Amino acid sequence: MPQSKQESKLYTLEALACQLGARLSGNGKVPVSRIATLTQAGPGCLSFYSNSRYFAQLQSTQAAAVILDAKALADCPVAALVMDNPYLGYARAASLLNPVAEISGGVHPKAIVDPAAQVDPQAWIGPGSVIESGARIQAGVFIGPNCVVATQVRIGAGTRLTAGVSVCHQAVIGERCLLHPGVVIGADGFGIANDQGVWVKVPQLGTVQIGNDVEIGANTTIDRGALEDTIIGDGVKLDNLIQIAHAVCIGDHTAIASCTAIAGSSRIGARCTIGGAVSIAGHLEICDDVHLTATSAVPRSITQPGVYSSGMPIQEAPKWRRNVVRMAQLDQMAQRLKVLEKQLKKINPE
Amino acid sequence: MPQSKQESKLYTLEALACQLGARLSGNGKVPVSRIATLTQAGPGCLSFYSNSRYFAQLQSTQAAAVILDAKALADCPVAALVMDNPYLGYARAASLLNPVAEISGGVHPKAIVDPAAQVDPQAWIGPGSVIESGARIQAGVFIGPNCVVATQVRIGAGTRLTAGVSVCHQAVIGERCLLHPGVVIGADGFGIANDQGVWVKVPQLGTVQIGNDVEIGANTTIDRGALEDTIIGDGVKLDNLIQIAHAVCIGDHTAIASCTAIAGSSRIGARCTIGGAVSIAGHLEICDDVHLTATSAVPRSITQPGVYSSGMPIQEAPKWRRNVVRMAQLDQMAQRLKVLEKQLKKINPE
Amino acid sequence: MPQSKQESKLYTLEALACQLGARLSGNGKVPVSRIATLTQAGPGCLSFYSNSRYFAQLQSTQAAAVILDAKALADCPVAALVMDNPYLGYARAASLLNPVAEISGGVHPKAIVDPAAQVDPQAWIGPGSVIESGARIQAGVFIGPNCVVATQVRIGAGTRLTAGVSVCHQAVIGERCLLHPGVVIGADGFGIANDQGVWVKVPQLGTVQIGNDVEIGANTTIDRGALEDTIIGDGVKLDNLIQIAHAVCIGDHTAIASCTAIAGSSRIGARCTIGGAVSIAGHLEICDDVHLTATSAVPRSITQPGVYSSGMPIQEAPKWRRNVVRMAQLDQMAQRLKVLEKQLKKINPE
Repeated sequence: MPQSKQESKLYTLEALACQLGARLSGNGKVPVSRIATLTQAGPGCLSFYSNSRYFAQLQSTQAAAVILDAKALADCPVAALVMDNPYLGYARAASLLNPVAEISGGVHPKAIVDPAAQVDPQAWIGPGSVIESGARIQAGVFIGPNCVVATQVRIGAGTRLTAGVSVCHQAVIGERCLLHPGVVIGADGFGIANDQGVWVKVPQLGTVQIGNDVEIGANTTIDRGALEDTIIGDGVKLDNLIQIAHAVCIGDHTAIASCTAIAGSSRIGARCTIGGAVSIAGHLEICDDVHLTATSAVPRSITQPGVYSSGMPIQEAPKWRRNVVRMAQLDQMAQRLKVLEKQLKKINPE
Repeated sequence: MPQSKQESKLYTLEALACQLGARLSGNGKVPVSRIATLTQAGPGCLSFYSNSRYFAQLQSTQAAAVILDAKALADCPVAALVMDNPYLGYARAASLLNPVAEISGGVHPKAIVDPAAQVDPQAWIGPGSVIESGARIQAGVFIGPNCVVATQVRIGAGTRLTAGVSVCHQAVIGERCLLHPGVVIGADGFGIANDQGVWVKVPQLGTVQIGNDVEIGANTTIDRGALEDTIIGDGVKLDNLIQIAHAVCIGDHTAIASCTAIAGSSRIGARCTIGGAVSIAGHLEICDDVHLTATSAVPRSITQPGVYSSGMPIQEAPKWRRNVVRMAQLDQMAQRLKVLEKQLKKINPE
Repeated sequence: MPQSKQESKLYTLEALACQLGARLSGNGKVPVSRIATLTQAGPGCLSFYSNSRYFAQLQSTQAAAVILDAKALADCPVAALVMDNPYLGYARAASLLNPVAEISGGVHPKAIVDPAAQVDPQAWIGPGSVIESGARIQAGVFIGPNCVVATQVRIGAGTRLTAGVSVCHQAVIGERCLLHPGVVIGADGFGIANDQGVWVKVPQLGTVQIGNDVEIGANTTIDRGALEDTIIGDGVKLDNLIQIAHAVCIGDHTAIASCTAIAGSSRIGARCTIGGAVSIAGHLEICDDVHLTATSAVPRSITQPGVYSSGMPIQEAPKWRRNVVRMAQLDQMAQRLKVLEKQLKKINPE
């Protein structure tokens, strides 16, 4: 059974510098095998400095080396790997030191694979997973325990379904994706028509198409389209407990934080970042390079790149209770303000 | 293994008109077998027109026929099925052209059915699903892969659990329901009592009763009651990632969009529509025919039918930051406004 | 197969009074075996009175006995168990009358347990559950059907995973915890670094540590840390569909209602209560004994205990639409108010 645990590897600083495209400061022969925070790092540990609030921690770190930018080098008491984007350097170094385990192909004896499914011999199907007829699973795919891959689903090379993932019929998932436990791809969209007070189901006949290099967090749901497909672009990153409704399109390299909901048929551009607990209404368009801060509510299209926000931060409860009353009087307050301005102008017309 | 894929059927327009109760305009012998949007439809395709924003698409459609209302008929370049509610017509036509596959009864050899469970021979139990003792499963039920149906659960005729659904002990699900992957029915409600700073669990001794023709979206959770049951009425439609707390009652034919949370013991009326990301507090009542728009927060009962809203739409971030400061000063602003009004009255008593 | 159904036990009132530390009023020989609400309780039923809105129900109850406080005793028509905190008394009495079934250890023949996992003979592993190598499961643990316990996970004595729970590699769960269906522990945190428009994954190398006596609601997700662990304190109670991001710490005996999201690296104090649909930003600290009402948004640290709120309650939709327009003019309104005050002062300088 392939192990999901990541084993750490040993690198010398000069080898790492070479791999990262970093400039080395200090002894390149020093080996590191572990990433740690500035305060927790000790001998053999690599750390990183990308946020000035940790400046004091940089100055006293006992890491073997620190990834940082050129400005911080003078304050680093140990060896350093100098890069323009140290956080990116950290991400890459952590991946080098902790490579994802290689998949050894095979089907666990307790997996349930339909004879009419096509599973590449270089793919792994874990125990308790069910692969239905017509599913096609490419090389290097890892299907962890207790997943369901329904009929005619396609899963591209190198994609991993950690555990307990459900992929409904005909959905298409690209290469090198990572789907965390409880993800549901391709459940029916929420389509209903009213017949004199009784709801009639609108069959959901489209499917879901997911690009390459997409990550989908635990218990996130992506519905199939009614007539057109739901489309998730390349490099999209989705956090946990996100709802993507039917026929939504999400552009390449957009990242969305947890508990965000996107209603049906909306189109989100490329390279957007969407904070947590954001609500986006249906049938609208958000252009490329839009950034929505956490708790934003988006009732209409956004046609200009930029940063948008809404939501109300906490106040002490008694104060909030008083202010909330006024919220329902706002328009009336604005009218009264206008009246006052007029009256004052009459008195004092300067 | 029963297939979840829907195969499309062929209808002539006159046969469809008859089934839908529509008036036919054009050649009734023309066959259609597929539903598509106005722009994507080609020969053999049926489309529909129910939203004036697609008027230009109607005029240039290449569908074999379009479902529309009488007002739109003059602008339709092809055959038409004329109905008062074309969206409903679309829902029904799509169901006729894409009927849900018949269930062939049986128990997959990799299903795990307790000998003390009662499974109708006309029900299907999929691979990896666990049916515990005392469960009763009626004819035409489809239990997809990797579901759990716990002890003494009852599932009515024709209900479908797609995959990975958990139904906890003693829950009752009606007929012709559809539960999508990851749905959890009957987990413990969130009942805790405080004992000098330490939480003591309140046992959740009630259960969940779900009516007929209920649809429940992916990863939605419906908790069991503490003493009284949680009740979901007939024809209720729930989207994904919804939370229904213990002892909530939802009236017949109410529809709720994704990411909405309803706290404990609240009673929602019949024929309500509740938008996405709505929060409803506990121990309140919402009467029949209430409509809550997306992101509404409901802290108290609603006794009059109508449309209710709350929430703040996005602004450009710098503007929002300035306005948000004022939000915490609203009551103070209202007081100042009052003072000004008084002063001005003194000066200018007209 | 161990049953999850709770069988009720019989107690005399005097035995219950003794167990609860309550003062008995009435005939102590009367037996009770069931808890019910004041209106539903009949002979053999115990009820409780802890909320004055049910005063009329107390006066007409047909329960065999009622748990109540001393002030309510005079109005109770039947026997009573008098306690300072009747709701706590109810919680304890309900547990006594409905004890959780004892676990009989064993491994279901359809469970899949890696030979390199350590499962105590007094633990139960249910059908379809997968226990990977290196996992250690203590006595009295109940793993229900279709769970996944990944490599090197540790689960403490007496903990229950109801069904369909996923615990990812190396996570540590304490004793006497209760995890409801669909819970995901230890999926990767949402860590990404931007490389010229393309997201690069930050490996999530930490894990999750959950204390003792923690309850986690259905479909709630708790991510593993990037470098430091995510930590859930003793006695923490989490409702359904909650998101706990990477490296969050939650203090002992904090309770959180459904659909709340806590972003990465935030530290929540002990004994806090957090209402439903609350959003807490990342990298902040909330001190002990903070209470956040439902729908609050927390963008910065809270350093004083107390009650905090935000969010806007519903209004009738036309009124809300008018008020919402003003919300985007609030700062401008405040400026105009200031101008008026100045002008008025000039006219009327008293």
